Amino acid sequence: MSDAATALAQEPSKRRERGGRSARRELRSHGPEGLGRPYILRNIPTYDILSEESLVRIEATADRILAEIGIEFRDDPVALDHWKRAGAKIDGVLVKFEPGMLRELLKTAPAEFTQHARNPANSVIIGGKSVVFSPAYGSPFVMDLDKGRRYGTIEDFGNFVKLAQSSPWLHHSGGTICEPVDVPVNKRHLDMVYSHIKYSDRPFMGSVTAESRAEDSIDMARIVFGEDFVNRNCVILGNVNVNSPLVWDATMTTALRAYARANQAAVIVPFILGGAMGPVTNAGAIAQSLAETMAGCALTQLERPGAPVIFGNFLSSMSLRSGSPTFGTPEPAIGSMVVGQLARRLNLPLRCSGNFTTSKLPDAHAMNEGTMSMLAAVHCGANFILHSAGFLDGLLSMSYEKFVMDADFCGALHTYLDGVKIDDNELALEAFREVGPGSHFFGCAHTMQNYETAFWDSEIADNEPFEKWEAAGSEDAAIRANRRWKRALAEYQAPPLDEAIDDALKDFIERKKASMQDAWY
Amino acid sequence: MSDAATALAQEPSKRRERGGRSARRELRSHGPEGLGRPYILRNIPTYDILSEESLVRIEATADRILAEIGIEFRDDPVALDHWKRAGAKIDGVLVKFEPGMLRELLKTAPAEFTQHARNPANSVIIGGKSVVFSPAYGSPFVMDLDKGRRYGTIEDFGNFVKLAQSSPWLHHSGGTICEPVDVPVNKRHLDMVYSHIKYSDRPFMGSVTAESRAEDSIDMARIVFGEDFVNRNCVILGNVNVNSPLVWDATMTTALRAYARANQAAVIVPFILGGAMGPVTNAGAIAQSLAETMAGCALTQLERPGAPVIFGNFLSSMSLRSGSPTFGTPEPAIGSMVVGQLARRLNLPLRCSGNFTTSKLPDAHAMNEGTMSMLAAVHCGANFILHSAGFLDGLLSMSYEKFVMDADFCGALHTYLDGVKIDDNELALEAFREVGPGSHFFGCAHTMQNYETAFWDSEIADNEPFEKWEAAGSEDAAIRANRRWKRALAEYQAPPLDEAIDDALKDFIERKKASMQDAWY
Repeated sequence: MSDAATALAQEPSKRRERGGRSARRELRSHGPEGLGRPYILRNIPTYDILSEESLVRIEATADRILAEIGIEFRDDPVALDHWKRAGAKIDGVLVKFEPGMLRELLKTAPAEFTQHARNPANSVIIGGKSVVFSPAYGSPFVMDLDKGRRYGTIEDFGNFVKLAQSSPWLHHSGGTICEPVDVPVNKRHLDMVYSHIKYSDRPFMGSVTAESRAEDSIDMARIVFGEDFVNRNCVILGNVNVNSPLVWDATMTTALRAYARANQAAVIVPFILGGAMGPVTNAGAIAQSLAETMAGCALTQLERPGAPVIFGNFLSSMSLRSGSPTFGTPEPAIGSMVVGQLARRLNLPLRCSGNFTTSKLPDAHAMNEGTMSMLAAVHCGANFILHSAGFLDGLLSMSYEKFVMDADFCGALHTYLDGVKIDDNELALEAFREVGPGSHFFGCAHTMQNYETAFWDSEIADNEPFEKWEAAGSEDAAIRANRRWKRALAEYQAPPLDEAIDDALKDFIERKKASMQDAWY
Repeated sequence: MSDAATALAQEPSKRRERGGRSARRELRSHGPEGLGRPYILRNIPTYDILSEESLVRIEATADRILAEIGIEFRDDPVALDHWKRAGAKIDGVLVKFEPGMLRELLKTAPAEFTQHARNPANSVIIGGKSVVFSPAYGSPFVMDLDKGRRYGTIEDFGNFVKLAQSSPWLHHSGGTICEPVDVPVNKRHLDMVYSHIKYSDRPFMGSVTAESRAEDSIDMARIVFGEDFVNRNCVILGNVNVNSPLVWDATMTTALRAYARANQAAVIVPFILGGAMGPVTNAGAIAQSLAETMAGCALTQLERPGAPVIFGNFLSSMSLRSGSPTFGTPEPAIGSMVVGQLARRLNLPLRCSGNFTTSKLPDAHAMNEGTMSMLAAVHCGANFILHSAGFLDGLLSMSYEKFVMDADFCGALHTYLDGVKIDDNELALEAFREVGPGSHFFGCAHTMQNYETAFWDSEIADNEPFEKWEAAGSEDAAIRANRRWKRALAEYQAPPLDEAIDDALKDFIERKKASMQDAWY
């Protein structure tokens, strides 16, 4: 990573709107020791769970899946043509790859790249030691304690963009934070991308549900950043899913090629529910994920060598009792850590997911599973962590309360990923000399010099004595979170947006919307 | 670790009473792939967070604290005499240690040992790759959803022993699970130890609040196991706390010496709240913890060379806003991982804590902090994890609901610590051949052969579809946990206890109680 990138990551971000905080909190976040940053540079090692020998066996299995079973690329003759010219074996839509071929193709993909934000202070590095937290993606429903569950709307969508922008602990505005079901399916992407640009000045994601929608998303980014800049720099991501097992369909391959063609980063993500879209055994599902992701990533390089691309994964398990998918369980947590090692061996930026759960409420169940999955994501070395905030009910609902709980936990992870500093001040030998046996450190010079930045201080946790907590109404964390998101929305202030750009975006959207009938599928 | 120990850990435990479970769950826990075990043998590596260079700096700081500042040993002339004969520098009650002296003394302590249970199938290995989960320890209050918070009683104490015994995922009966405040302080230990022996056939802990109470606890163990067996084997643990900073008082040193003298294992635990009992900076608190623990562990070896001893720690942070202690925050999680590396360098069994929180309810806050601290404990390589179940309100309350939630999470960690198996069946190449691109794995031969043992299946999580969950009453995890602990108590069956032993214990307790006036301090 360049020195400039390091400086960028370490400089506290200036643009956050955080009215109503105490002066001490302000000092923590904006001072030289401030924890809020445009992204995290991890200062703790990745957790390498498997031996070299075991990793080689998984890679060999992936190679055999690719060579002996193959992957179908359906309804996309351009993709098939790419593979043919690259030397793959084509039989109808089935493509087989000699061992090593995809690895060779992936060598043109960058190990890390910058995704630019419209506010340059918020640009993020994706790859290397960087960690970027992005909200959850793709729920049809939203929920909160007051109104319960209902379909998401474009207003909800905007609210979540505002909540993400308001949090010092998220780094990315995300993509389809929730489905705005009050907008026609074929026009939604325009309003979603506009909301990201208008209400946030952080990096964001565009549409992938059709090639034309991917291109509209990129065109809107061109209005913001300029055509030439976009051709030379990554400013938008597109999250494309494999149709597991072992099928890439044209919707996804044309979208991923649209992003690659424009030099924008596709995120390549097999969604494998063990026992359904992949084997019920973890090692097999991981091998499959590796095979499918390598194929998708390599296709971006055939479309445009050197285009940024992110190696993704989404492993999950199944309940034996109900047959339902499960999230935040131990098997996918272990899976994330193995995938992390595999991605590093390919020298590609890694996407994982965190804060997963099947819970329908922002309760103990939600945060137990969420915390386990999120810690796996940060331990495995993920660079871009989707679903970092809001995820409930197996990705069916975005929760307002869980969003702010998760964002708060992302704050804790800023401290966690800083690890432990070792220097004379931190080792504090002078403090021991000052205090000695049997006394206390409350007012000692070392404490006074260090306490303001010493500890992570959650906004959701209640650390007060029981009696004080009880006198204040015996609230649980969900009720505190409910108040927290309402305050954040009330205090939200939009980041400035150049009027000419805003007008050009509105004009683009109006023309696009006028050019087609509403479609609801 | 011996082959016998490995076989012991892998053999599914036979003695659990788990009526009311489905046949499939029974098969999971008792079959050849059963997850319930007397203890866990970790199959994933420890997470080594710090470099050799940083560890050496922490060790050097601990050595300087010991040599230049020293530790006070108050009101225990025998301890001072031990130190004098070992070559330490004594000035009144202040003891200073030349660098390397304590490390040398610690060489006689075993790297791992067996703590025997009265049911041999439940004996645990402490040290090496073993992980033992033990309930929370020391709360004056108990709480549940029905009755709220109140002082703990001996009935509550017994209930928690029964709940621990009923769970396939805990391995140890613990110690002072809650304070039975309806029993006089000077007689409590007798009823607590009796409850552990009567209602559980797992290993347990004795009293440390006075030398005589430690000796009573050990005497009761002698009644169960026989005097000679106890002299040759560890059957009881005593958890002793340093009076941080840098003070060992006579209550604790006489108790730890009583355990060591009887060849039983003391657990040596500094409780350091950064900024109060130690420096506000993490590295300094860790160095202090190392110094204090080494001194305590070494004292056991002076009392009886070769006595088992456990290297413990309890680091915590502080809320900047309220001045209250915080638990389950990132700093102590990082601290645990560093302490793990330090303990391994001393070749001593390690105690850490997990499932910590300041929350007053079994809510999202509780499980977010709890999960973070518990994962740190298992990643750091802890062998004996105290506070594995029930902890609420910064150790002031044992929660019935959180107890069963935490025990369920301990179950998830059995799967997590198994890691990922890599063999032909797990890699599942044949399944890919069978299913091929675009189909699904639901009914394939590989799935049918593997699904029953494939995934962790929580009893607390609700993975049902939203509509089904809603129709069943929209319950949160706490309500499910409330039902779960009531069912476990209703279905509890006491493990058989030899009548002669039971009578001898009762007789011992009666005589002891009759020999002293009630005291309430």
